[in-house]
Amino acid sequence: MRHSPIKAVVLTNADVDHVAGLLNLRESQPLNLYGTGRVLDVLAANSVFNVLNPDFVERRALHLDDAVDLLDPSGAELGIRIEPFAVPGKVALWLEDESSGPNFGTVAEDTIALEVTATSSGRRFYYVPACAAMPDQLATRLRGAALVFFDGTLWQDDEMVVSGVGVKTGRRMGHMSVSGEDGTLAAFDGLDVSRKVFIHINTTNPILLDDSPERATVEQAGWEVSWDGMAIEL
Amino acid sequence: MRHSPIKAVVLTNADVDHVAGLLNLRESQPLNLYGTGRVLDVLAANSVFNVLNPDFVERRALHLDDAVDLLDPSGAELGIRIEPFAVPGKVALWLEDESSGPNFGTVAEDTIALEVTATSSGRRFYYVPACAAMPDQLATRLRGAALVFFDGTLWQDDEMVVSGVGVKTGRRMGHMSVSGEDGTLAAFDGLDVSRKVFIHINTTNPILLDDSPERATVEQAGWEVSWDGMAIEL
Repeated sequence: MRHSPIKAVVLTNADVDHVAGLLNLRESQPLNLYGTGRVLDVLAANSVFNVLNPDFVERRALHLDDAVDLLDPSGAELGIRIEPFAVPGKVALWLEDESSGPNFGTVAEDTIALEVTATSSGRRFYYVPACAAMPDQLATRLRGAALVFFDGTLWQDDEMVVSGVGVKTGRRMGHMSVSGEDGTLAAFDGLDVSRKVFIHINTTNPILLDDSPERATVEQAGWEVSWDGMAIEL
Repeated sequence: MRHSPIKAVVLTNADVDHVAGLLNLRESQPLNLYGTGRVLDVLAANSVFNVLNPDFVERRALHLDDAVDLLDPSGAELGIRIEPFAVPGKVALWLEDESSGPNFGTVAEDTIALEVTATSSGRRFYYVPACAAMPDQLATRLRGAALVFFDGTLWQDDEMVVSGVGVKTGRRMGHMSVSGEDGTLAAFDGLDVSRKVFIHINTTNPILLDDSPERATVEQAGWEVSWDGMAIEL
């Protein structure tokens, strides 16, 4: 029987690697779809996403810094509270508007992170799949967290250029790098986060290789590299 | 190195199983993208497909019954001529307009088939991934062909309803069934096609199972059931 256990989907941005998967979901399975107004506007402007039959899939708006208890399609609480908040980033590649100047028309809602809390226990984690920098405000928020999933796109800013697979730097794509003075390892040093897990890792990033020196470096710094099927009990 | 050998893509309709794959292609690899005006309009109206960078991916309009020599991105001929022609079908599911009456706004360009010819040898085949019926004109065209790939969506019209995975019949989705008096096996009987291959087969169709009686039936009727990685030399 065709079935998916997915009751709700939360979109953190409108880039194609975040939204294309929607097209693989069953068209008529009840589901709640959460996103900021910015992301929902993008879905509304692209009729291909109507393959998720609006009779079954409800789109629900998230607002920055406004915590929401996720609901299943029947309206029952799932026991998961999310609070979306803006992090430094950029507009989705395919929405870039060069006429908008150096930030290509990026708005606060373009790149968000989530604070995710189990309503029963109060345990929580942070999910930050894209982040271009670590301002003090974000560092303060993450300090002492039990678990953070964080943008691990690139090891170094010019990695795609050097390896010949692309012309864009990490900065240009809205990602801070793992290594370096302004990198993620340095930014988390001293933040006292119990578990730190890299996600959203580009194929060029050597931390993906079990036996690379870069993998050893991140593990020495207390990071884990996520993998398909990874399960975490908090 | 990131690379795909794909030089050109021909879209036969705008349903999500025909266009979603575009989102998995490299954004900056040169490519020619062919489709009817109807299909290209759909891509233009869905900005998500701009992930295929228009600087690298040229969209080229096909016209019904107008043969075209496919070009690679440099403008060189690929040695493949295609002639698109309309077959009975329906508008893509997510473009349905109920206010347009019983055909949901279907136009001729919504469901097309291709006559594909190797320009060097003149050898050719037909590619018909969706077809709702076999009118005389289509039967005449396919008669005596060396090779036909044909819509094998369902074994019988109410198969998805009976198996509980959906509420739609094959007719409702614009597909004739393999079995039955008006089915594909009957329609090809006597057409003298040398090789007949079912494609676009739904997961509920029992011809997918090697040891099913339905598989035996189609093989006895001279059909092959396509599989991932199948290669055919004509």
